[in-house]
Amino acid sequence: MSDKNNTTDVFERGPENTAYAQYFVGQSYLNILNREGVFIGNVTFEPGCRNNWHIHKTDKGGGQILLCTSGNGWYQEWDKPARALRPGDVVHIPAGVKHWHGAAKDSWFSHLAVEVPGENGSNEWLEPVSDEDYEAL
Amino acid sequence: MSDKNNTTDVFERGPENTAYAQYFVGQSYLNILNREGVFIGNVTFEPGCRNNWHIHKTDKGGGQILLCTSGNGWYQEWDKPARALRPGDVVHIPAGVKHWHGAAKDSWFSHLAVEVPGENGSNEWLEPVSDEDYEAL
Repeated sequence: MSDKNNTTDVFERGPENTAYAQYFVGQSYLNILNREGVFIGNVTFEPGCRNNWHIHKTDKGGGQILLCTSGNGWYQEWDKPARALRPGDVVHIPAGVKHWHGAAKDSWFSHLAVEVPGENGSNEWLEPVSDEDYEAL
Repeated sequence: MSDKNNTTDVFERGPENTAYAQYFVGQSYLNILNREGVFIGNVTFEPGCRNNWHIHKTDKGGGQILLCTSGNGWYQEWDKPARALRPGDVVHIPAGVKHWHGAAKDSWFSHLAVEVPGENGSNEWLEPVSDEDYEAL
C-alpha cells in the first residue's frame, strides 16, 4: 500500500484533476504524459476515490487500457464482479462497456490510462458508484 | 539503479526477447502487455544492452512512446546528443526519426513501449550503436 506521500509512484502525480472532478467521488490527480498520437495520463486516486460509471463511446476503435503502477484499486464492469487491481496489472476496457475504476478504501492507487484511438470518441458519464456497493467490496 | 533481480520493476519482465534479438546488442526481455487497439510491451535491458539504430516507418500516424519505469537508460536521435532516462521520464518518438534506446552501462533499464497506431507501419532496423559511441556516453 502506498502512503499518503505516494513515494512509490514512478510517474509524477500531477495537479488535482479538476477537469473531471464532477465525475469522481473523492480527490483524484491527473498528470498528462502524452497528447500526440496516443493520449496517456497518469491518474492517482486518494483512498476511497473512484470515478462514476462511464462508457467510452466511439464509432470505430476506441476504449482504454489501464496500466496499474502503485497501490490497490478496483475495476468493475456492469453486471460483473469487481476485479482487485495491483501494481503490474493491465486492464483492457473495450469501447461501449459501462464500467468504473478507482482506489481501494484504505489505499492510494495509481494507473496509467492509455486511450485507444477511435473515430468520434467521447465519454458518457453516468451515475456514481453508490456508497453501499463500494463499501461492500 | 535496479539490481540484477530487477525487484523494483512494476511490470513483470517476461521472457527473453528472442524475436528481436538480432536487432539488439546484449540481452533484452519483452513482456507484451496489450495487443488489442494499442500494442504495449514492457521492455527490459540488461546493463549495456541497447537496440540498433532504427526507424518507425508508416504512411500516416505511427511512432512510439516510451514510459520509463526503472533503472537508468539512454535515448538518442541521429545527429543529436543522447538523453539520459530515469523512471518517470516519457519519450515521444516520431515516425521517420532514426534513433536507438537502451540501458546505461552499469544499470538495468525498463520502459513501456506504446506503439502509436499508423497505416502500413513497419520498423526499419539499421546498424548497431558502435561500442565507441556507446562507451563515450
